[in-house]
Amino acid sequence: MLSRRAAAECVGTALLLATVVGSGIMGERLAGGSVGLALLANSIATGAVLAALILALGPISGAHLNPLVSVAAGWHGEVAWRETCGYVAAQVVGAVVGVVIANLMFELPAVSLATHARHGPAQWLSEFVASFGLLLVVRGCSRSAEPMRAALAVGGYIAAAYWFTSSTSFANPAVTLARALSDTFAGIRPADVPGFALAQLAGAAAAVAFAHWIAPPHVVRAAE
Amino acid sequence: MLSRRAAAECVGTALLLATVVGSGIMGERLAGGSVGLALLANSIATGAVLAALILALGPISGAHLNPLVSVAAGWHGEVAWRETCGYVAAQVVGAVVGVVIANLMFELPAVSLATHARHGPAQWLSEFVASFGLLLVVRGCSRSAEPMRAALAVGGYIAAAYWFTSSTSFANPAVTLARALSDTFAGIRPADVPGFALAQLAGAAAAVAFAHWIAPPHVVRAAE
Amino acid sequence: MLSRRAAAECVGTALLLATVVGSGIMGERLAGGSVGLALLANSIATGAVLAALILALGPISGAHLNPLVSVAAGWHGEVAWRETCGYVAAQVVGAVVGVVIANLMFELPAVSLATHARHGPAQWLSEFVASFGLLLVVRGCSRSAEPMRAALAVGGYIAAAYWFTSSTSFANPAVTLARALSDTFAGIRPADVPGFALAQLAGAAAAVAFAHWIAPPHVVRAAE
Amino acid sequence: MLSRRAAAECVGTALLLATVVGSGIMGERLAGGSVGLALLANSIATGAVLAALILALGPISGAHLNPLVSVAAGWHGEVAWRETCGYVAAQVVGAVVGVVIANLMFELPAVSLATHARHGPAQWLSEFVASFGLLLVVRGCSRSAEPMRAALAVGGYIAAAYWFTSSTSFANPAVTLARALSDTFAGIRPADVPGFALAQLAGAAAAVAFAHWIAPPHVVRAAE
Repeated sequence: MLSRRAAAECVGTALLLATVVGSGIMGERLAGGSVGLALLANSIATGAVLAALILALGPISGAHLNPLVSVAAGWHGEVAWRETCGYVAAQVVGAVVGVVIANLMFELPAVSLATHARHGPAQWLSEFVASFGLLLVVRGCSRSAEPMRAALAVGGYIAAAYWFTSSTSFANPAVTLARALSDTFAGIRPADVPGFALAQLAGAAAAVAFAHWIAPPHVVRAAE
Repeated sequence: MLSRRAAAECVGTALLLATVVGSGIMGERLAGGSVGLALLANSIATGAVLAALILALGPISGAHLNPLVSVAAGWHGEVAWRETCGYVAAQVVGAVVGVVIANLMFELPAVSLATHARHGPAQWLSEFVASFGLLLVVRGCSRSAEPMRAALAVGGYIAAAYWFTSSTSFANPAVTLARALSDTFAGIRPADVPGFALAQLAGAAAAVAFAHWIAPPHVVRAAE
Repeated sequence: MLSRRAAAECVGTALLLATVVGSGIMGERLAGGSVGLALLANSIATGAVLAALILALGPISGAHLNPLVSVAAGWHGEVAWRETCGYVAAQVVGAVVGVVIANLMFELPAVSLATHARHGPAQWLSEFVASFGLLLVVRGCSRSAEPMRAALAVGGYIAAAYWFTSSTSFANPAVTLARALSDTFAGIRPADVPGFALAQLAGAAAAVAFAHWIAPPHVVRAAE
Repeated sequence: MLSRRAAAECVGTALLLATVVGSGIMGERLAGGSVGLALLANSIATGAVLAALILALGPISGAHLNPLVSVAAGWHGEVAWRETCGYVAAQVVGAVVGVVIANLMFELPAVSLATHARHGPAQWLSEFVASFGLLLVVRGCSRSAEPMRAALAVGGYIAAAYWFTSSTSFANPAVTLARALSDTFAGIRPADVPGFALAQLAGAAAAVAFAHWIAPPHVVRAAE
């Protein structure tokens, strides 16, 4: 049975992907050849919608919207492993649905395999760094009950990360998988998905370990 | 008698529309043919003013500025139906006044029927999705007494929604109606208003039902 | 004797003007002829620095940075008239200093009278509307002790107001006066200053009256 | 022994520099010759990541990420001098690592000395003003335990400061030093580093003195 919290993750991830892919298409169409302008719109839209979704859904499901975040929460015992699996499944389903919706909103085929090549050591390093930074930010804000802090931190971080990495910072395996299903600005060739996902997992694992070392519960409690 | 709260809705919606239409005109005039740059300015200005208006007017009237939001509040019993009707009327009047002011600020005729065609299944789907997301965000933040959360969530969401839908996300029947009165960047042909409004109502209804299912009062209270 | 609070107003207004004029010069130099891009940078920089200054100086002086705001506070008895006069003088001095600093940072003469014509009914209406909205936002947030709400509301509002008025929303007599001293992007011809200032005063007075009517103290107290 | 707090400063500064330099490279590559668009992306990305890092790391180390801020904290007795030294060393190391990572993410040599000339009185004045404003903002927000206020103020201030100074506001000696190691958009010729650093120190010292005068502890306590 799909729990209510997993349903929130599914719909939230769908809206996230609709934004990532949809704003990429809109940006490309309107930018008149300026890839920089398209990426600016794409990055601002993604950061802004992430903040909105975390503010709205944070108190319900935690608004992970990312398997890396859910697995980290499971590893810390904040979410039961059984529920973690439900979250990840819901995120993957939501991500695919979001891409399909984006394609349809722009009169494109519901699904078209992307041909945008994204691979090589520089891009894998980018995904490692992007995911390391994202999980460091998420874990740093995870002890705050108020969703505002995580919303602004994650939204701001992702908007920036589009620009400071050569991969434009996917930093999310569900997002990466789903973006293979739209042959548009935000797409990624299916064959390049596993490389990105592996780099993301490695970066996230390093961040979780580092965050745990610099901020074990008793230190944070004393500082706040 | 026009209540003070309805007056706040009226003036707030007027400022919202002055921003939507005025920044569209300014964007078009200054962008030198770059529709992407015009939409970027238009979307940032709209999101920023929405946040400002919700912060300033939220404690007074709730700062709905949108019949979809007022009707949802009425349906949940947060606002009496009688007052809901006053809110909607005030929003429609304010929206029209805001468009007239925008036209006059840019030395255009006070009213000119828009000729910008906006219709078809892809745009209707866009309005359904945009309104679904907006109401999901609004309902998710509606239990917070502090206007900050709703202000940032709604402002961020709308700035993003300009970009991730092919319709640029009107997501507001009063706004849609009023935007028919300016033949500029943000305009919509009068004949296309009903299609947009119907799609908006359907999306909002779906969101209200979904938000109620994933977050009935007792669940939210336990999570917060 | 210049009080500490007035000193904060003086330095804060200097930084505000350095931003308004400096980012205008930088925008014009880098935008390669795209006025839209220059105004986008100008508006984002101004909104962002306003939020920062209100967050930093709000608990010290209130961070009015604008004679309209100080006079409204004086009228409501929140600041003594004697201190209000000190604030306004400090703001005017700070504004002029800020413009001089901006000119020098960009290797321009310390002072050069602007030649940018800004007048006529449409621009005066723009300044009326811009000042009305600004004071409505400021008064709506003025009862919150926490500077966050005013910072985001005012910063967001001004960033938007650059775009939704044909005058680019000066909405501040001290700013208007000082901007006559830089013959650059943000300048205004000295002869056009009085018209702008009068329109600003009228808009601010209307907003203060309206805000007082929709939100007299006992109503706000009940709603919060 | 490197403390956990210093490790947070080191990694935080690395992510900051990766953003400053990486988004500069990305901006330059995608902007198609529009320096304005490149700087817009560069400034938004830097401001956004600063806010995210302060939100995430603030409760752990204070998220200074800048020797000027650490020395000011040491001078006020908020951090022991011994720890201040550790912070500064960690920031310098982190800044260099961040630049190397940025270079590698974009398939450039790990280190290449910058050739971008940045010197002369106008630029030194710019760095003085930029650092004065930054420290005024930081000290104004330093009494708030909640990292939100400092995060938004510093992020907003730096995004604006890129635009209102002719130097694009380095305002950070560790950042200045490290940016000499990338011959890209954000680079600075090694010979120009000392001039920038001296101007930054002078501006920061003036701000600390001014902030202490306008807001001695008992005045702030009474106002809040």
